[in-house]
Amino acid sequence: MSGGLDSTILLYDLLDQGHKAHCLLFDYGQRHIKELGFAEATCSKLGVTFDKISLPPQLFQRSALTTGADSLVGQPTIVPNRNMVLIAMAASYALSHGCTAVSCAVNSDDADVYPDCRAEFIKNLNFALRCCHTRRMEVHVPYIVRTKAKVVEIGWRLNVPFDETWSCYADGDEPCGQCGACQVRLKAIADAGHALQ
Amino acid sequence: MSGGLDSTILLYDLLDQGHKAHCLLFDYGQRHIKELGFAEATCSKLGVTFDKISLPPQLFQRSALTTGADSLVGQPTIVPNRNMVLIAMAASYALSHGCTAVSCAVNSDDADVYPDCRAEFIKNLNFALRCCHTRRMEVHVPYIVRTKAKVVEIGWRLNVPFDETWSCYADGDEPCGQCGACQVRLKAIADAGHALQ
Repeated sequence: MSGGLDSTILLYDLLDQGHKAHCLLFDYGQRHIKELGFAEATCSKLGVTFDKISLPPQLFQRSALTTGADSLVGQPTIVPNRNMVLIAMAASYALSHGCTAVSCAVNSDDADVYPDCRAEFIKNLNFALRCCHTRRMEVHVPYIVRTKAKVVEIGWRLNVPFDETWSCYADGDEPCGQCGACQVRLKAIADAGHALQ
Repeated sequence: MSGGLDSTILLYDLLDQGHKAHCLLFDYGQRHIKELGFAEATCSKLGVTFDKISLPPQLFQRSALTTGADSLVGQPTIVPNRNMVLIAMAASYALSHGCTAVSCAVNSDDADVYPDCRAEFIKNLNFALRCCHTRRMEVHVPYIVRTKAKVVEIGWRLNVPFDETWSCYADGDEPCGQCGACQVRLKAIADAGHALQ
């Protein structure tokens, strides 16, 4: 759980469906580390247990999200193989603690920029997860067939307080409105609003 | 690199083939953490750079290798999804630092007990790795088609000093001779010796 729009909506969605959840919050050296404060606050509010996991800083270099690079839009924001590392760790955690699946809130718009959000990647990762252990494991990606605007609609239906989420890649006091994450968030909310008119 | 027989032989083998190597040494809460001291000593001796990476203790539970459980033979020694976590991290590191591949010393005997050493698992993991990023990545497993005895033969041919490796799962001063790791090591060396007679 990042504390952004999609993962927060997914948590509300899973609880609404009657699932029991445990969240993993990852510090992977992202400059917008403040997102995890939003994730923690949501977990606490919903009575959901969580672990905060710090990853070694050597792993994820060459990304604008973990370095001081300027451009926070498009390809420079890719963090190499991030989702395999996070999902693999979540699968180990799940197998170690008796959880039945990992859930991840990638949506179909994420595929435009991020290779490790694409259906092809997740499908192959699931083939590996299904044979990684003596018990079955898999990653559940309910939003991979939905645009971010459709995820926003689910959030509205579940009364998710969007102001309790943080998407911006910059580390300012307010969302910058310019980075890749702000752009797709604003567009998704606008698109979802138009769809309701 | 664990500091055991297979990964140490693989390092010598890669260098012998003219590759440049950088090793990752993982502290995942294994009770036989002393193996990493052997890995470090080998890297230093060979002039190979390395990083030591500590994983969060919550991840790998329910394994005799990370808990105080007694039996160090067979299924209890499985660490849930360990190899996906380690290989995923190595792939992120490789993509972040301009390395072209990850190498991992699983051998065909490992498949008897460990699901995350089987060809099926590695094959699917490679399908995922090949599409995880904008650049190609893969894990190279040259010993997966060789028994541990055949790996021992490679080690002998390359004059790898076996007394500078540590396999034992227990944390004693000397190898216990009884645990799963000691058993397969002793059997592989015996089998390789017979094959040479």
